[in-house]
Amino acid sequence: MNAAIVTIGDELLIGQVVDINSAWLGEMLGNEGFRVVWKTTVGDNKQAIRDAFDAAFNHAPVVIVSGGIGPTKDDITKRTLCNYFGSTLYFSEEVYKTIEQLFQATGREMNELTCSQAMVPDNCTIIPNEAGTAPGTWFERDGKVLVSLPGVPSELKWLMANGVMPRLKKRFGQDLFIRHHTLWVTGYTESKLAIQLAGFEQHLPAFVKLAYLPQPFVIRLRLSAYAKSEQEAIHTIEEQKQKLYVELGDHILADEDKSPVEVLGELLKEKGLTMGTAESCTAGGIASLVASIPGCSAYFYGGVVSYSNEVKKKTLGVSPADLENYGAVSQPVVEQMALGAIKEIGCDCAVATSGIAGPTGGTPEKPVGTVWIAAAIKDKVISHCYHFGTVREQNIQRAIQMAILMLLRFVQQETT
Amino acid sequence: MNAAIVTIGDELLIGQVVDINSAWLGEMLGNEGFRVVWKTTVGDNKQAIRDAFDAAFNHAPVVIVSGGIGPTKDDITKRTLCNYFGSTLYFSEEVYKTIEQLFQATGREMNELTCSQAMVPDNCTIIPNEAGTAPGTWFERDGKVLVSLPGVPSELKWLMANGVMPRLKKRFGQDLFIRHHTLWVTGYTESKLAIQLAGFEQHLPAFVKLAYLPQPFVIRLRLSAYAKSEQEAIHTIEEQKQKLYVELGDHILADEDKSPVEVLGELLKEKGLTMGTAESCTAGGIASLVASIPGCSAYFYGGVVSYSNEVKKKTLGVSPADLENYGAVSQPVVEQMALGAIKEIGCDCAVATSGIAGPTGGTPEKPVGTVWIAAAIKDKVISHCYHFGTVREQNIQRAIQMAILMLLRFVQQETT
Repeated sequence: MNAAIVTIGDELLIGQVVDINSAWLGEMLGNEGFRVVWKTTVGDNKQAIRDAFDAAFNHAPVVIVSGGIGPTKDDITKRTLCNYFGSTLYFSEEVYKTIEQLFQATGREMNELTCSQAMVPDNCTIIPNEAGTAPGTWFERDGKVLVSLPGVPSELKWLMANGVMPRLKKRFGQDLFIRHHTLWVTGYTESKLAIQLAGFEQHLPAFVKLAYLPQPFVIRLRLSAYAKSEQEAIHTIEEQKQKLYVELGDHILADEDKSPVEVLGELLKEKGLTMGTAESCTAGGIASLVASIPGCSAYFYGGVVSYSNEVKKKTLGVSPADLENYGAVSQPVVEQMALGAIKEIGCDCAVATSGIAGPTGGTPEKPVGTVWIAAAIKDKVISHCYHFGTVREQNIQRAIQMAILMLLRFVQQETT
Repeated sequence: MNAAIVTIGDELLIGQVVDINSAWLGEMLGNEGFRVVWKTTVGDNKQAIRDAFDAAFNHAPVVIVSGGIGPTKDDITKRTLCNYFGSTLYFSEEVYKTIEQLFQATGREMNELTCSQAMVPDNCTIIPNEAGTAPGTWFERDGKVLVSLPGVPSELKWLMANGVMPRLKKRFGQDLFIRHHTLWVTGYTESKLAIQLAGFEQHLPAFVKLAYLPQPFVIRLRLSAYAKSEQEAIHTIEEQKQKLYVELGDHILADEDKSPVEVLGELLKEKGLTMGTAESCTAGGIASLVASIPGCSAYFYGGVVSYSNEVKKKTLGVSPADLENYGAVSQPVVEQMALGAIKEIGCDCAVATSGIAGPTGGTPEKPVGTVWIAAAIKDKVISHCYHFGTVREQNIQRAIQMAILMLLRFVQQETT
């Protein structure tokens, strides 16, 4: 079954807010066999919202709408829905009670605007919202369904999981089974990989798609099967994945849509090793990436963000003479940072970064984008100098990704 | 002048990649007077791409297309463009030379697929790409313009800045001047703030919009002016902003679209203070947020990620007895972490977090979402216990935001 998404809000168009909701909706719908084929974002504008509804219905019988149903004046989705579906608003005792309970539980007082959230269209199904004040509304027309939901991520997620998905599955059944499988491949440029896989691609079944998603130093290679049964989807993905393993062998760094940091975590757990970080230019970015994985406390002990040279010396034990002679962005310093982190934190391995993220701080010998990265296990240490680019945010992100890859490879090498 | 955006790629629909490009495009276009009114995302599917082009042209005379022009088989935007605009592909010596130079500069070898990027449509203007292999293509039809660009963020940005924006401004002139101004407001719920501002909203000029963007603990209040001259846009925003200051006074935490972490940085610089971090559950997230601001090395010395209790004791000097008696997620421990960070890092103030991010680790007394946060200046420390929620990622993000707000307020109090 095809689905379409409409997200509403000026903030999405002017770029003040990134539309994370629709990515999350796409993933959740896909997992249940609803294939998102069309997505439109419009501002808080009546005609544009109507046009977006029309376009969405032209592409799919299921339309999920998010945003524009808050209590403030700039939110006009509810009024537009009434106009589009010919509804009249009425005061729902039931919705009012849900809001009242929510406010009592959190000790807040209701006011005229929160009460107005209990005014709902008369020709739709109300989907109660226990996570916020605006309920979901489910409209039907000509066998097609449009569901309007809040844009607040936690409310959207609660309503999708508890109210919308169960109803959608009951209403439409499941005629499509979607499975994605992603491999992380290193050591290829995108075009080289495509040439290597030309034969493989030629023999792919028509209902399987192969996509290349290049990232710094890795390419995510995604197989997608759109099958008639769950078994067929799973079987086909497995079969094609095996062929890719034959083609690419050791170039496959990670299997499934697991990022290198998840693979690193699993490897450390498996080997009974612990890790720490010593970060200068990445400033805690590696630590927070490592800690974004649930259960990381089994192998992640902690880190030091040594933005100043004083912290490098005092906490990480970097030699003042080396800092003086070679500078903070240098091989001896980054290696001492990694080894110092192991000692200070009391862990088995560590990764360290020291670089010039920019926009200022570059010199002719060490331009902006120069980053030294070291990975250490016990008393062994390796290091490498990278030249990433000129954009601060990009330099930081690339250094974080590269540091994880470097430690992952080093642990793989040393433990096999 | 209105503009529309089309982003292409299955990865955007299935939720594997979040569409950051279109947010960035919206911001850049708006700054130059091109108001994005419509945005569609479609997969790598010929008919859907054609429909998206049609819908975009129906809403705006300027259409920016991003994605689907890589050298691999899954990318079909170029073929679809030829079909849509009736073009024939030809081999462009000029494009070939640009690619050749790019490859020589980075020491890579060209192959048949990279060469194929020099095949370009014959009825468009080629916009050279010095950041990658796929050039931009500029098509015109019935006085409307469609520009196709790569989806790789660094290439998209380079082409927009160097090739597309100058041409768009020359082609269309500027008939609209857009200015946004955002205030960060604390101490209100969204509905309370809207009631407070009801009179203000009623007297807003028709070409000015007010939007409420609620976030944990703060509401971003955005004024947007769409004016006929730059002067009018600037003047109107200034006038309305002054009225908001009269209405909201001290509730305005920050002015302009500056986040609390930027305001904190400016305040520390102004007062000549330095800061550090001691993070458990946020695991470097505060440090990396602080370090995301260019020039932060003037006031940010570093931090300790004390994920394990050993690091809390050894590096931050937390009392082993207090850890034993009260647990890591407790007032004495978080306060000692903040004070310990000041001592270890050698800075003037620090912020510390210790909490249970989840999904596991909760107890009846300290359920998932319990986070202690402390802010310290020299030997003074304040702390507070928060109960954020049940979702790991949300708990971490809320703790990061709240920690910054807490330190910001504490520094404001202590230095005025």
